[in-house]
Amino acid sequence: MLPIGGETLVLTHDMMAEGRHFPAGADMADVAWKVVAANLSDLAAKGAEPIGVLLGHMLGEGDERFLEGLGEVLHTYGVPLLGGDTIRGAGRSEGARAFGLTAIGRATHIPVPDRRGARPGDAFYVTGPLGAAMLGFEALKAGKTGQSAAYLRPKPLLDEGQALAPLVTAMMDISDGLLLDAWRLGEASGVTLALDSAHFPVADPARRDDCVRWGDDYELLFTAPVDTALPVEATRIGTVAARGASALLVDGKPMTPQDGLGYRH
Amino acid sequence: MLPIGGETLVLTHDMMAEGRHFPAGADMADVAWKVVAANLSDLAAKGAEPIGVLLGHMLGEGDERFLEGLGEVLHTYGVPLLGGDTIRGAGRSEGARAFGLTAIGRATHIPVPDRRGARPGDAFYVTGPLGAAMLGFEALKAGKTGQSAAYLRPKPLLDEGQALAPLVTAMMDISDGLLLDAWRLGEASGVTLALDSAHFPVADPARRDDCVRWGDDYELLFTAPVDTALPVEATRIGTVAARGASALLVDGKPMTPQDGLGYRH
Repeated sequence: MLPIGGETLVLTHDMMAEGRHFPAGADMADVAWKVVAANLSDLAAKGAEPIGVLLGHMLGEGDERFLEGLGEVLHTYGVPLLGGDTIRGAGRSEGARAFGLTAIGRATHIPVPDRRGARPGDAFYVTGPLGAAMLGFEALKAGKTGQSAAYLRPKPLLDEGQALAPLVTAMMDISDGLLLDAWRLGEASGVTLALDSAHFPVADPARRDDCVRWGDDYELLFTAPVDTALPVEATRIGTVAARGASALLVDGKPMTPQDGLGYRH
Repeated sequence: MLPIGGETLVLTHDMMAEGRHFPAGADMADVAWKVVAANLSDLAAKGAEPIGVLLGHMLGEGDERFLEGLGEVLHTYGVPLLGGDTIRGAGRSEGARAFGLTAIGRATHIPVPDRRGARPGDAFYVTGPLGAAMLGFEALKAGKTGQSAAYLRPKPLLDEGQALAPLVTAMMDISDGLLLDAWRLGEASGVTLALDSAHFPVADPARRDDCVRWGDDYELLFTAPVDTALPVEATRIGTVAARGASALLVDGKPMTPQDGLGYRH
């Protein structure tokens, strides 16, 4: 958050590395889409409207596809490429590549939502199905085409984030799985989030546990007073309580990151 | 350049990769210094005052030294770290690392100087000794300690850039060598720069040619009306002429990038 000349800028920077965030041989158009979408999702969680992005691009195989994907995602969300840097890597065929993206947004609501404002008594919500990215990833591994969009081309919830910003007490996007990110929100707010697993909106009810521990869904988590009329579709999955022993209770059971809540980067 | 809320932001993004911009085994404190300094130098050339930086950091060996160097350079120039991303690479010991840095600055003078404004009749200037980074690099290779600061810890000319911004017709920093960057400025302005090599302020007069082709000096190149009283130390090395066959003449001889003007990234 950067107040400047009467506006408040929101800045995010996410980096993706070959072998960790995408496999060697991935369609680079998808990689470009995802690094932009991940950053725009950070803006969405702040209720910010994107102004532009800067790209750090390491040249290599599939650069044309990368530029195609970059063009697609920037066009889809109406975001200009403001600049960046293009470098060659070390020239080793084994050398892993990395891409960095900075997104700049303009806050549409002050105060800018963050993780710290959840208050006891608030309701706790999440958008969208959880685990869709996981299912997409598994379909991709299994060679099933056309079923991986949620994993390869996640959609940043920009409109939803802006609509929610004036109403929420806390908000963040899910990148590392519902449980881990919920725990983080509870910790940051100094509260305990009491979740009811029966209400988790999972993409595969047979694999409830996996769906809420896998990351990459880029849905929004937020808290709001219980009587708030929500302008977006979301599922209430719990309630904010005064801080107890743990920042997270699932069906009454205290949970911590030691319980393997989600994906740790 | 990004007008927002009555201010004009200047944004830069530079990336550095192991094996290309720094060797494996480099002191990571120097690497951190340089990636920040290179970006601040871009701001300097725009007459911008730094507001903050975002870092994309790939974890690996020497991270403590990296953070030390980062702290030193940010403290030296009074620039806050606003955010960023820290990722693990692919986990291969051979995996090359990369760092990306976004610097955000506030323009101190409008119009923001760029490469396009040189006008026939202007004088052409450069700050500082050229080739100092080259000599520092060679000293490092030769194992001579304490003589490599110009290469390892370049100083972005922030005060100089801000002092010059209201006076120049065009300005840029040198990253790829005087001749190549001068040619670029000439091309961008649609003029011919006529340089007099006898006036090049070189760090080693015996190696004039090398000094003006090596990069990494982060000095400022600029053009200004001939009667301008300069607020910074700089050397006049030529004159702007109407566009001839080439954007660059050195001692009357047309030069192009095909002549091996400098370092091509």
